[in-house]
Amino acid sequence: MAKANADTRLSKKAYEARVPGLREQLIQLQVRLKEAPFKILLIVAGEEGCGRGEVINTLSGWLDPRGVETFAFREPTDEERERPLMWRYWRCLPSEGRLGIFAGSWYTEALREQARGSQMPAQLDHELARIRHFEKLLADSGTLIVKVWLHLSKTDQRRRLKELAADPDTAWRATDEAHHHHRIYARLARTAEKIRTATHQLGAPWTVVNAADPRARNLSVAQLLLSRFAAHQKRQSVKTTAPVRAKATKSLKPAGLRRLLSLPLDQKLSASDYEEKREKWLGRLNRAVRAAQAKKRSVVFVFEGWDAAGKGGAIRRLTSAIDARDYRVIPIAKPTDEEKAHHYRWRFWRHVPRAGLVTLYDRSWYGRVLVERLEGFCTEKEWKRAYAEMNDFEEQLTEHGIIVIKFWMHVSRDEQLKRFREREGTVYKQHKINAEDWRNRRKWHAYEIAVGDMLALTHTPFAPWHLIPANNKRHARLQILKTATKAIENALAT
Amino acid sequence: MAKANADTRLSKKAYEARVPGLREQLIQLQVRLKEAPFKILLIVAGEEGCGRGEVINTLSGWLDPRGVETFAFREPTDEERERPLMWRYWRCLPSEGRLGIFAGSWYTEALREQARGSQMPAQLDHELARIRHFEKLLADSGTLIVKVWLHLSKTDQRRRLKELAADPDTAWRATDEAHHHHRIYARLARTAEKIRTATHQLGAPWTVVNAADPRARNLSVAQLLLSRFAAHQKRQSVKTTAPVRAKATKSLKPAGLRRLLSLPLDQKLSASDYEEKREKWLGRLNRAVRAAQAKKRSVVFVFEGWDAAGKGGAIRRLTSAIDARDYRVIPIAKPTDEEKAHHYRWRFWRHVPRAGLVTLYDRSWYGRVLVERLEGFCTEKEWKRAYAEMNDFEEQLTEHGIIVIKFWMHVSRDEQLKRFREREGTVYKQHKINAEDWRNRRKWHAYEIAVGDMLALTHTPFAPWHLIPANNKRHARLQILKTATKAIENALAT
Repeated sequence: MAKANADTRLSKKAYEARVPGLREQLIQLQVRLKEAPFKILLIVAGEEGCGRGEVINTLSGWLDPRGVETFAFREPTDEERERPLMWRYWRCLPSEGRLGIFAGSWYTEALREQARGSQMPAQLDHELARIRHFEKLLADSGTLIVKVWLHLSKTDQRRRLKELAADPDTAWRATDEAHHHHRIYARLARTAEKIRTATHQLGAPWTVVNAADPRARNLSVAQLLLSRFAAHQKRQSVKTTAPVRAKATKSLKPAGLRRLLSLPLDQKLSASDYEEKREKWLGRLNRAVRAAQAKKRSVVFVFEGWDAAGKGGAIRRLTSAIDARDYRVIPIAKPTDEEKAHHYRWRFWRHVPRAGLVTLYDRSWYGRVLVERLEGFCTEKEWKRAYAEMNDFEEQLTEHGIIVIKFWMHVSRDEQLKRFREREGTVYKQHKINAEDWRNRRKWHAYEIAVGDMLALTHTPFAPWHLIPANNKRHARLQILKTATKAIENALAT
Repeated sequence: MAKANADTRLSKKAYEARVPGLREQLIQLQVRLKEAPFKILLIVAGEEGCGRGEVINTLSGWLDPRGVETFAFREPTDEERERPLMWRYWRCLPSEGRLGIFAGSWYTEALREQARGSQMPAQLDHELARIRHFEKLLADSGTLIVKVWLHLSKTDQRRRLKELAADPDTAWRATDEAHHHHRIYARLARTAEKIRTATHQLGAPWTVVNAADPRARNLSVAQLLLSRFAAHQKRQSVKTTAPVRAKATKSLKPAGLRRLLSLPLDQKLSASDYEEKREKWLGRLNRAVRAAQAKKRSVVFVFEGWDAAGKGGAIRRLTSAIDARDYRVIPIAKPTDEEKAHHYRWRFWRHVPRAGLVTLYDRSWYGRVLVERLEGFCTEKEWKRAYAEMNDFEEQLTEHGIIVIKFWMHVSRDEQLKRFREREGTVYKQHKINAEDWRNRRKWHAYEIAVGDMLALTHTPFAPWHLIPANNKRHARLQILKTATKAIENALAT
């Protein structure tokens, strides 16, 4: 871990001589950042009394405030508490060309809980793994992450708390909590060290800055931001972005493909049989959803499948069992420009439902490893690491108590052809078919391989895939009803 | 007010014969809506037991759920409570091409409060005026507003409540509140009638639907949606959208222009004098902002002014007195495509700060009556009605306790020229000047007229304009500090 300005003391004069040059460089950084295809996340953490607020205020004064957003993350709001922990950070991520300053963050919370003694070590390890994963994901997508730890020795901290308490303007900042942290300094320092070590990684390294001298500290942080930016920009510019497409059609894990191809598709179900069973299962699903609601458990459905496999119809039947005020269908089509300016997963996070509500994704984050993989909309690296990212996302949802139910609706190639032709022949269905559908159809075998990999690599105990044979629409709809109901019932029973 | 199906009873058979045709028409409506440059807002209200939920569920089952969103508006979240009442409705408005169904809305709340007897008649009148204004604003911008009142006679309501209570699946819906509403039926009916009459207006008419027979009721609502859509689409297509530009440069209210032109611009302020006073006022502003925060009062700053008038610099000086974690600067440039798909004011509503925080808009909603007026980006009708819309918006903010402080930074044309040339001559300032700035400059006199109108027509007791002479940068910055401080202090004192 890099340590900046180990023992510097800086005179006011020396400080003021250096500030104008730094400010100009920071403004230039922002001008260049505006054009750059990435964002900066500056995380400022440190011991109590380290001057986190002062550093951020000073820096904000130097920067053009129009391109900066600072977040404090105080008590979570009820909208935040009803979602997984990371939701509140996702919603505050800067978009491309902007700088987000996180005063307080996942680190502050982790450390504070340790100070309160309210957290088990295993829980901390789990959280650290999550943080590591989150930062890696951002870094992988090109975000420049600058993490600063403002370090105060125990002696410096005592002096600092005394200074704060002596000044009526700042006395309120020398809180009981701050004094408590001072008393258990050694223990917290060990934990902080552990946290930093565990989360010091490529793309998201820690820099420890000595915070004993406020002026030297301010300069160090600004200087760090400038140098990390320059290095990052240089790296970004040499990066090759051309997708490697040859490997896209090679199977990563043939077991998934075998599972897909062995799915029998010759089911039959008579209309009368269907209607009778459907009514029964719709009632049962309705009760299951209401039971989940009573327990504040949300449900997230993922609908994936071949074009014309019947996703829309299945969603309609399913939602007919749920009160319209309690569910939302999110059709995943072209991202909006706000979505494009964020990490590709941001658009899925933003629709995570509040406690007790239901979200149905009509297509989903899996587009990354299906169409984006095969059309070269992302690089090989990107789609290959997406599997783990999705598993992590779904794990976060389920850990928060959200029930995740994923369907792959499977039809044969012949059945798809039949349905395409039918769509073309029916006036009010023509809007549902276009040239792209035909193009995708020609790549059927490549898609089979991608689907197989997806099924194999993202089939987890907490969010398994349900393969739905869908040549027979009635059978498919009924099976989806049944599967959804049982999945909710099982989740509630455990 | 139109009344549909006054006394119809419909057999199951007759109902089922009509449903398939309606469904197909509804799907076609959605296909056409997707391409249409407007949105639909369907508001379903009515007496207790009228079957609001059933209507919405039935309709949702008939529609393609991917283009529909239903909102229930239960207890507001804390994020909602910290903003003006209408914020929660603004954030849920559908975007263009989509249908938003509001089950419960401002009407439900108004009626419920009346039932509780917790609201004065004057307060209701005030709320109704606000609703009228809100709906007019949406309708003016092309939104199709369909308001349905599901009517139940007292006898029908009694029967309905009994039915609900008798079925174990629905018994929970026959609440104490529902029974209370039944007991005070006559009084509520009068209030409902008053509410409907007061909010029955062009572009947002009420249709009362007899809800005694559920089947007839469902068909009526669907039919209403279809016919209103057809009529609306026809009207939209004949609308002329070409802006009338000749009138844009004619003053509406010369008093404002006179006020602008009479502003003396020859102030002087020495550097030492400035620095001394600045420190004093920064300290006082800091205390004022913290005092506002302690009272959970937010502050909204609006910065408008000529290009190169020094908005950016003034904002930086001002924010240096505020903790970076407590303010956000919102630069208003080109809207994102999500913003374009909404009412032009949506993008300003979304940034209204939480309780105790500060938002600084660097340019603002006033763009509508400045650049958009003069460049013909909106129609004459649109910019002319914008003045009243802005006053209403700011009134809503101030009624909620938000302190609104608006600055117009004024420089002479010569001073602007000097600054433009300086920007072009300084490497790190070149990004701040472009051809558009020069183009706008050539329209100086037209802009003066538009600014004058703005000053005259949106200078209100609750959100007055502060004219800042800005030829002298130091003087301007200091005056902004002073004005901001005093405005906050005064607001807190009252």
